[in-house]
Amino acid sequence: MKSYFCSFVLLISFFSSMLFAKEQVDLVILGPNIVTMNQDRTIIYNGGIAILGEKICAIGKSSDIKAQYKGKETVKTEHSWLIPGLVNTHNHAPMILLRGLGGDQCLQDWLTKSIWPVEKVYGFDPEYIRDGMLLAGWEMALTGTTTHLTSYFLPHEQAKACKELGIRAVVCHGIVDSAPFLKGKTADDLLKSAENFLKTWQNDPLITPAISPHSLYLCTPQTVRKAFDLAEKFQAPVTIHLLETEKEKLELQQKYGKGPVQLLEEKGCLKPNLLVSHAIWVDEMDLDLLSKRGVKVAHCAQSNMKLASGIMPIGPMLKKGLLISLGTDGAASNNSLDMFQEMDVAAKLHKVSTRDPDLCPAEKIFAMATIDGAKALGMDKKIGSLEAGKLADMVLLYSKTPSMRPIYEPYAHLVYAVKGNSVDSVLVHGKWVIRNKKLVNASEDELFTKAGEWEKKIMRMIDEK
Amino acid sequence: MKSYFCSFVLLISFFSSMLFAKEQVDLVILGPNIVTMNQDRTIIYNGGIAILGEKICAIGKSSDIKAQYKGKETVKTEHSWLIPGLVNTHNHAPMILLRGLGGDQCLQDWLTKSIWPVEKVYGFDPEYIRDGMLLAGWEMALTGTTTHLTSYFLPHEQAKACKELGIRAVVCHGIVDSAPFLKGKTADDLLKSAENFLKTWQNDPLITPAISPHSLYLCTPQTVRKAFDLAEKFQAPVTIHLLETEKEKLELQQKYGKGPVQLLEEKGCLKPNLLVSHAIWVDEMDLDLLSKRGVKVAHCAQSNMKLASGIMPIGPMLKKGLLISLGTDGAASNNSLDMFQEMDVAAKLHKVSTRDPDLCPAEKIFAMATIDGAKALGMDKKIGSLEAGKLADMVLLYSKTPSMRPIYEPYAHLVYAVKGNSVDSVLVHGKWVIRNKKLVNASEDELFTKAGEWEKKIMRMIDEK
Repeated sequence: MKSYFCSFVLLISFFSSMLFAKEQVDLVILGPNIVTMNQDRTIIYNGGIAILGEKICAIGKSSDIKAQYKGKETVKTEHSWLIPGLVNTHNHAPMILLRGLGGDQCLQDWLTKSIWPVEKVYGFDPEYIRDGMLLAGWEMALTGTTTHLTSYFLPHEQAKACKELGIRAVVCHGIVDSAPFLKGKTADDLLKSAENFLKTWQNDPLITPAISPHSLYLCTPQTVRKAFDLAEKFQAPVTIHLLETEKEKLELQQKYGKGPVQLLEEKGCLKPNLLVSHAIWVDEMDLDLLSKRGVKVAHCAQSNMKLASGIMPIGPMLKKGLLISLGTDGAASNNSLDMFQEMDVAAKLHKVSTRDPDLCPAEKIFAMATIDGAKALGMDKKIGSLEAGKLADMVLLYSKTPSMRPIYEPYAHLVYAVKGNSVDSVLVHGKWVIRNKKLVNASEDELFTKAGEWEKKIMRMIDEK
Repeated sequence: MKSYFCSFVLLISFFSSMLFAKEQVDLVILGPNIVTMNQDRTIIYNGGIAILGEKICAIGKSSDIKAQYKGKETVKTEHSWLIPGLVNTHNHAPMILLRGLGGDQCLQDWLTKSIWPVEKVYGFDPEYIRDGMLLAGWEMALTGTTTHLTSYFLPHEQAKACKELGIRAVVCHGIVDSAPFLKGKTADDLLKSAENFLKTWQNDPLITPAISPHSLYLCTPQTVRKAFDLAEKFQAPVTIHLLETEKEKLELQQKYGKGPVQLLEEKGCLKPNLLVSHAIWVDEMDLDLLSKRGVKVAHCAQSNMKLASGIMPIGPMLKKGLLISLGTDGAASNNSLDMFQEMDVAAKLHKVSTRDPDLCPAEKIFAMATIDGAKALGMDKKIGSLEAGKLADMVLLYSKTPSMRPIYEPYAHLVYAVKGNSVDSVLVHGKWVIRNKKLVNASEDELFTKAGEWEKKIMRMIDEK
């Protein structure tokens, strides 16, 4: 009888342990208010999240997650906010090393007088690209960006630096027909190099290789078409500068008798995998075409403001259902890579320029910097919101600073009051990239020292001219 | 002979000690690059500064200062920048406790639907004012503002809180004829209370008492005149909201058959001690009058953007020689008190809205936030630049962060790239207010906890409505 009883007790405890055993995961975060950016825009107060490998395996109330999951690492927080990692859809990341050169000029003067002379010397220098990418990646991660699109020289070097830091990136191979910094390279040379780049990186977990025919003022329509052919072969995203200045509009009109949107349409390049940046000088017909073809937009409010390029007509764009995302552009024309300020200023710019305080409300702007950013890059199945099954790219906001209290309306607070310096920790692909405001995978001292060396080198070069 | 020789040696060593003895001061800072904002806009690389009591006694090259002065405290820094404390000329500081309420509305809706109902309950609550002022003071000091103008309820409480933190403030006693939050008080009651306030604080080293008839839509011209009489009696600054919205312009036109600038002129209120805030809907004639009378302007770019009030015509104002300073406005309509972002966004807004990238160049914008801010408050003999004889109000920027390197053009970097979070330490009136990013004179934990309590209290009040 006793042995029966013992067996019974053992059986019960076995089943109960089966029933109540916590699932083992890599990381559990308990306590933050979670802004999910899922379809219903659920905000979970006192939430919890469980992460296994590179993915979110569960998200819910803190008590439920605590009951069901046991993390190899557990982070308990109070008064903190967990948001999806921000997505910056237009950047030339290593240009951070040129930040501050030639302020207070228009795009054309700034490029030709201040930027291209330096790029002509250093553009193809792997160290310049690597050091710039690492510095930019540090600034982005530190201010809550987990995914960015970057288009600049030597994309292999950029991709490697992003992997080193552990951040996600869409790295574009640039294509131009002619430019002073090309050093004899032709568009065909660049297309060949781009094919090699797309092939090399096509299955990387962090890097999405892409192609960027620069614009229709630096590329012929034929070259843009060739870039699209390559993109189709590798199912890669394409991005192009479009109507950033009125000058571009007027010159293309004069040269081709039509604008760039029409030129792209004729070449069959208006596709859902196309992301156009700036799109300031678009007219009604352009917008109709872009919208009909499912083309996405990367809006760079601050860069457009600083270079006095113009104000993108976001109201009509939203009305036509165009997908808008946000980009900082390079730090040399912004002059920061902080997506919190980008959200804030973009929202304010459109309110005042239309005199409509409800245009670009905070929730919509926050979507542009998260889930709509992911859509712009064709990655919304994987990132852009905090949901079970998605990749674990997220930002923990915490700081005992005056800007973190009081908080009445989460989206308004995230867009208008929180700055990048409230970011405490950042997770990309399930791994810490920033922990307690510190870079995890690179030496901050080394990056800072190298940035100082570039300052001296570039200053000297400018002084000698 | 020997004794003669001894006397001679003693005499020599006495004179040489007289010649080479270092002057004893309270604080010496060695090593920073100093942006003085003096008349010549001198920038001293590897500079030094000596402070005795509340004043700067010497400023120059680090080696010279080191040779001549011995500080009770010596701060040696590298890679850092020392700038004059920033001056915020328009704020309603304790409103920080309402930050985030009623986003995405115009001024009128935001005030009447979201702000006034809360102010009606808490506006005259000394704890609300004190806690709000301390929180705002913390945010301002932490982001490099050493002097601000604040206009809100219970100015005594605000002044006391500023002194507690050690920050400099122009604290205004507000005057209105009627408003829903007045609780039966008349303009004459307020004027009487203002007189008492001006008398009490007239000789304070940190607080400059001032008077603020709110605007010509909440005050009659007679009441504004009475406020000016008081200001004249005490030689106090006056500030007034002017033409912030088109609605104000239209309503005053309808009521008086003329605009507020004309009304102020007729009452003899356009004086050099008058600081008008916003000044968006001014016409050519208004600008001529304001300029002729030496009236100063507080420009609140971000608040005007967020409330979609309009864009101040800064180009014509500068052409007419008007003195422009910068204000954040209250944190509830900005939604931050970081003057670095205010400089950045103000510059960008005017570039894009006029399509002139050289309008508001970085140096001019930096002047608006320092020496011109001091002029706007009538305090430029004492603050606004780093010069021997001036009060020691200054900000040490230092952080090993990506935004502090490379730096090519100091003003461009300060305006477009540096954020408030690069502030390391802040000195006001010769005393540390922020040291290594920490508040010196109040408990950060206590301020943070109290802000959380106000969040709960105000949320509950709103939910119960």
